[in-house]
Amino acid sequence: MTLSSAPNPTAPNKTAPPPADSRERASAMLKQLQDNICQGLEALDGEAKFQEESWERPEGGGGRSRVIKQGGVFEQGGVNFSEVWGDHLPPSILVQRPEAAGHRFYATGTSMVLHPRNPYIPTVHLNYRYFEAGPVWWFGGGIDLTPYYPFEADVVQFHRTIQETCDRHNPAYYQVFKPWCDEYFYLKHRQETRGVGGIFFDYQDGQGLLYRGPDQGKGADQVSQSIGELPQRSWEELFAFSQACGNSFLPAYVPIAERHKNDEYGDRERQFQLYRRGRYVEFNLVYDRGTIFGLQTNGRTESILMSLPPLVRWEYGYTPEPGSIEAKLYDTFLKPQDWVNWPTA
Amino acid sequence: MTLSSAPNPTAPNKTAPPPADSRERASAMLKQLQDNICQGLEALDGEAKFQEESWERPEGGGGRSRVIKQGGVFEQGGVNFSEVWGDHLPPSILVQRPEAAGHRFYATGTSMVLHPRNPYIPTVHLNYRYFEAGPVWWFGGGIDLTPYYPFEADVVQFHRTIQETCDRHNPAYYQVFKPWCDEYFYLKHRQETRGVGGIFFDYQDGQGLLYRGPDQGKGADQVSQSIGELPQRSWEELFAFSQACGNSFLPAYVPIAERHKNDEYGDRERQFQLYRRGRYVEFNLVYDRGTIFGLQTNGRTESILMSLPPLVRWEYGYTPEPGSIEAKLYDTFLKPQDWVNWPTA
Repeated sequence: MTLSSAPNPTAPNKTAPPPADSRERASAMLKQLQDNICQGLEALDGEAKFQEESWERPEGGGGRSRVIKQGGVFEQGGVNFSEVWGDHLPPSILVQRPEAAGHRFYATGTSMVLHPRNPYIPTVHLNYRYFEAGPVWWFGGGIDLTPYYPFEADVVQFHRTIQETCDRHNPAYYQVFKPWCDEYFYLKHRQETRGVGGIFFDYQDGQGLLYRGPDQGKGADQVSQSIGELPQRSWEELFAFSQACGNSFLPAYVPIAERHKNDEYGDRERQFQLYRRGRYVEFNLVYDRGTIFGLQTNGRTESILMSLPPLVRWEYGYTPEPGSIEAKLYDTFLKPQDWVNWPTA
Repeated sequence: MTLSSAPNPTAPNKTAPPPADSRERASAMLKQLQDNICQGLEALDGEAKFQEESWERPEGGGGRSRVIKQGGVFEQGGVNFSEVWGDHLPPSILVQRPEAAGHRFYATGTSMVLHPRNPYIPTVHLNYRYFEAGPVWWFGGGIDLTPYYPFEADVVQFHRTIQETCDRHNPAYYQVFKPWCDEYFYLKHRQETRGVGGIFFDYQDGQGLLYRGPDQGKGADQVSQSIGELPQRSWEELFAFSQACGNSFLPAYVPIAERHKNDEYGDRERQFQLYRRGRYVEFNLVYDRGTIFGLQTNGRTESILMSLPPLVRWEYGYTPEPGSIEAKLYDTFLKPQDWVNWPTA
């Protein structure tokens, strides 16, 4: 190999191939994440256990869906692992990654949504995934928290736990992926964020510039000026970062659930929780790329819609009473905020 | 006017202008429809009254939204009238009507969704609308029925009432608009129709050929071969047809609700109704063009989402027990059927 054709070992670029066993390592990591999460959540719940269903996809691949229902803490929760392959990626992804056109693809991911019964415990969502198609590969994912009756200290602790994980890998991650999350989980028709956010990233292939796709920006006017650039990173760095993010879920969430699992509540709090769950449905069915893509193609419907809450309420014209605790959710928590620097008592 | 430039009075074509007072007549007809429907439904309900909210659209126009809640028959129902105008139609409509590009538009419509409490009474949806934009105008709309615990005789009566109305205007209407409804209200990801259908039509501008847009056809392989052609029709004919369709709602639906409003039911029926209402949410948020367009632009969210049920349930992996009454809904009623010729006892 001549010097001129040798790849620069210190500066990976978009054509840097992944390790030979990249698929096995990514899927094993994401399967292990599913196992760890389920184990931690069963310990937290104390009553119910996850029920698993394995499934195969006719076009290639399959997964294992795990559901917990009617538990001590969780009214319903799902943790899915899947690993699929096929002839070509859908057009919506090829727009973002034209180099993948004409190539077979491989995709693996773990995703989770938890709907606790107690309205003082937030709903939480996590998804980490890895793609390969011809010359390109990328990592994506994130985690976000959706409280009903929020506590500032919980939100700050959640964000700081994530930030610390990010900082151990790259000090720019949190400052880029936090506003990306605020933008992505935004209900334009309600002018509300879905919750208090967390982090979100997609198309992370190690290139020096942060890729932000054309469909990013529903709430862009509010936050995109704060999004910066990222240095070049290797496959190994991104793999380790994704793994660390996944592993930070339990320490970020379990303490919040533990603190509130015995909080007393009444019909008012339950009704408000059911009402707010409607926003989760609206987001997932109207905006979420993964859900819509899965439904309109040949995804496994029951696994995709496992994210929908077990019981939901809509009420025409509802607005919280000014000054109420419910109004505080809207006024403070459903807007992008600098949670890690929040002046909590 | 010379003979050569005179419009042919017996053959309206796509450039035939509407009457000078077309907008006033269309909006007055649709407002009257809202009034008639609300009056008939209040009489049926016996307990609750519609509450009205008038609203204005900053870009031009407005509407009056009417909601009935916690009634004797209706757990929730909404009947909206709106009349809006603006600089240009959205791209999704311009694809279907390129002649409208660069012209201001006018649109008026009445839409309705009713969610009865008793699971033996079906949910029902109606929408009739009228558009103008530069050289083009068209009527659209339809009605469809979504039972939970269906009765064949109800479904047959519903379809025959609609068919009779259609036949009085054009014997081809029902045979074209009935399968169009089956196609439109189809949940591809569930491989189910939303309910037992009714009629649906769009872009009816009097041209001889039936226009079927590129996004028609989710379930096309099942029904589109039965869709025929329509003769040329005048604005007056289409106006009268839309009005007659609107007026046929009460005779098509009220007898069904009257028959079942005192039927006894228990928790099993209630739980199944709440579960099936989830399909209504899935359809409206994932597929319905009007809902998605309204949400992603600047529609009045509360009026658009008035169609969502007051209480909804999702359950991972639910399938009805084979041979049960719930299974019969899936096996017989959630597929396109020739209801007007159904061999009922």
